[in-house]
Amino acid sequence: MSEAATAVIAAARAARTAFEDLSNADPDVTDKALRDMAARLIGARSAVLAANGQDLDHAAAAGLTGAVVDRLRLGDERLAAMAGQLRALADAPAIERARAVRELPGGFRLEEHRRPVGVIGANFEARPNVVVDVASQLLKSGNAGVLRTGSAALRSAAALVDSVVTPALADAGLDPAAIQLVRAPGRDAAQELVRRPDLVPLVILRGSGESTRRLTEEAARAGVRTLAHADGGGVLYVDRSADRAAAFGVIESSLDRLGVCNRLNLLLVCADVWAEMIPEILALLARLGVTPSLPPHGHPRGHEWALDTGHEASVTVDTAAGPGEAARIANTETSGIAAAIVTEDRQAATTFLHTYRGTGAFWNTTTRLLDGFTLLGVPETGINVDHVPGPRGPVTYQDLYLRQFVVVPNGGSR
Amino acid sequence: MSEAATAVIAAARAARTAFEDLSNADPDVTDKALRDMAARLIGARSAVLAANGQDLDHAAAAGLTGAVVDRLRLGDERLAAMAGQLRALADAPAIERARAVRELPGGFRLEEHRRPVGVIGANFEARPNVVVDVASQLLKSGNAGVLRTGSAALRSAAALVDSVVTPALADAGLDPAAIQLVRAPGRDAAQELVRRPDLVPLVILRGSGESTRRLTEEAARAGVRTLAHADGGGVLYVDRSADRAAAFGVIESSLDRLGVCNRLNLLLVCADVWAEMIPEILALLARLGVTPSLPPHGHPRGHEWALDTGHEASVTVDTAAGPGEAARIANTETSGIAAAIVTEDRQAATTFLHTYRGTGAFWNTTTRLLDGFTLLGVPETGINVDHVPGPRGPVTYQDLYLRQFVVVPNGGSR
Repeated sequence: MSEAATAVIAAARAARTAFEDLSNADPDVTDKALRDMAARLIGARSAVLAANGQDLDHAAAAGLTGAVVDRLRLGDERLAAMAGQLRALADAPAIERARAVRELPGGFRLEEHRRPVGVIGANFEARPNVVVDVASQLLKSGNAGVLRTGSAALRSAAALVDSVVTPALADAGLDPAAIQLVRAPGRDAAQELVRRPDLVPLVILRGSGESTRRLTEEAARAGVRTLAHADGGGVLYVDRSADRAAAFGVIESSLDRLGVCNRLNLLLVCADVWAEMIPEILALLARLGVTPSLPPHGHPRGHEWALDTGHEASVTVDTAAGPGEAARIANTETSGIAAAIVTEDRQAATTFLHTYRGTGAFWNTTTRLLDGFTLLGVPETGINVDHVPGPRGPVTYQDLYLRQFVVVPNGGSR
Repeated sequence: MSEAATAVIAAARAARTAFEDLSNADPDVTDKALRDMAARLIGARSAVLAANGQDLDHAAAAGLTGAVVDRLRLGDERLAAMAGQLRALADAPAIERARAVRELPGGFRLEEHRRPVGVIGANFEARPNVVVDVASQLLKSGNAGVLRTGSAALRSAAALVDSVVTPALADAGLDPAAIQLVRAPGRDAAQELVRRPDLVPLVILRGSGESTRRLTEEAARAGVRTLAHADGGGVLYVDRSADRAAAFGVIESSLDRLGVCNRLNLLLVCADVWAEMIPEILALLARLGVTPSLPPHGHPRGHEWALDTGHEASVTVDTAAGPGEAARIANTETSGIAAAIVTEDRQAATTFLHTYRGTGAFWNTTTRLLDGFTLLGVPETGINVDHVPGPRGPVTYQDLYLRQFVVVPNGGSR
């Protein structure tokens, strides 16, 4: 058996044992552990930053630059932000674990319970802050976890687990093995993590792109469920009845970041107003430093610029006959993550919102809102774009549960 | 391409086109179509029973007997029951399509919407009544469907679709192609149905057993989600503090039918009261005509008698040290469909209910309650036993939706 397989299996088994303890924990105890992690992020600052320095040195030696190194780098500001997120999560409500459904004949009542899933896997690129982010959300939902990060961040991730997560769990009286880090480097570990449905039935795949797509497919073949979006790319349709200033405002706010999945990727303009509006739109894009790809296109209309290294600062621009056609283009030619319409015409908005089937449908505002924290006020575990019942769109810790039906005598109460 | 593949693809494409129409339908129109189907079940009685007679003749010629033929047979009583179910479903509430979540900054509000899935597949054994059962639930939830039944029921199924479902849809002004029947005989069609995630992302697999297990695995490999339970088998733990009469009552009511997945399959008796209780338990089983399999067992403790042709009238009996161990046995050695405890001791009940992780956990009542209609008062689409977020346990039409987040200006309303 490979080193990666051995490491994943050992981690999953340790997490499974710890889960029994975790699933019985009082939510207040878990929240205490999260607050303790926030404090330890500052208290263990030097150990964490030293490990991160080693990762950064190796990254420099390997010739890594730009956004990759930026994501890898920890510093006081990022540590403080991580601590703030931990405290916010500790303050967020626990999952409602039971609700009464109805009375049953014979003096019984039916309750619907939400149980932790058990061991949840998470795979993410070399971003050390995600270690704490994902670990805290799994703990908040009562789940144990097996985390796997890009090799470039392995020292930082290990320091965060060893100096922040594990001691905080132990101090709260929880089994410190509940959060496991796969310490075998290399992409093999990611593949092993999505191959073991009996040990890890659900894996969160953070980030878009080809490697996420391959892992999603590999997981499906093995019978492992994933929460993932290999593709992103927001769609914006500017209707003939759009307020012009509103349209320009939404375009600009949809392009404030270019490397994220919910940014504007495909801009559709109503054919009736194309000639009138396109000069101002092109001027706006030029001012934002974004290159328009105008028809006829030499690429699929849904081509995702955020994943096209070196061409991130591009937007595909095209016409659409009306709100129905625009929504159908978004449905059939894009990932289905989010689409927006700008219009003053309620009927046009209704047609667009009703026809579009992606995970987020927005009127007169930006697809950049498609984010768990922005929409729901709690951190986002990941985004899921599949087309079946279950958590879809921004997934939060509130979604990480199993449904169970419980029948008890009316006099009896758990 | 095989005949089966061609048939499945054509059916799925036809259903997809019809879905666009269906997803815009007013729930009252769908309910009207369901009531019309109930009337047509009686009105088209002779055509349906004639087709069923042909199926029965072929089954007899093929040497089929017993339960298989019983399930295949339609008659006035069964037609009346099917009509009653259709009317009850028409009276059941529509899926709540939108709920307000919270206000967002800038004068917007977030809504969570429930959208139909699209085209849902369903595979079931040669039981003609399931055609109407599944079709009606898919329509009630706004979904289109591709149905595939065992070849022995194909004439009956076609008659029900052609004389009952399709004309009722057309009369209600809905696209009659919304419910498709795969008319290619043979098991190939079932395999083709679970291989096409782009056309049929979700397939309901009715019934337990080896063929369901194989289809579940095949679907997973292809990236198709299933709602299925290959295995069933209820567990009952009789605690030391059980009321004796209650225990015998629950045992008896758990064995009223032997071919169903939620029947008593494994009876665990607290070791402290084993010697005292086992004579009466054996006498009860003898009176019910059920053979106990006593320890030491020559089979796995979770062996499912309902699927063991010729040995259905058996129950595995064993000891358990207490409620925690009983629940752990149920967790690790059975399908996880449902388990019950009989006890007067609240602490024992709490331990058992909290430890057991299957889809239904019951106190002082029978696992036979694990059924969508019994628990929730609406027909059951199927039972799903996987261990990930999403519909789990008895699934009803209320579960057959996609989550979508919608943001609209506060003044705007769809």
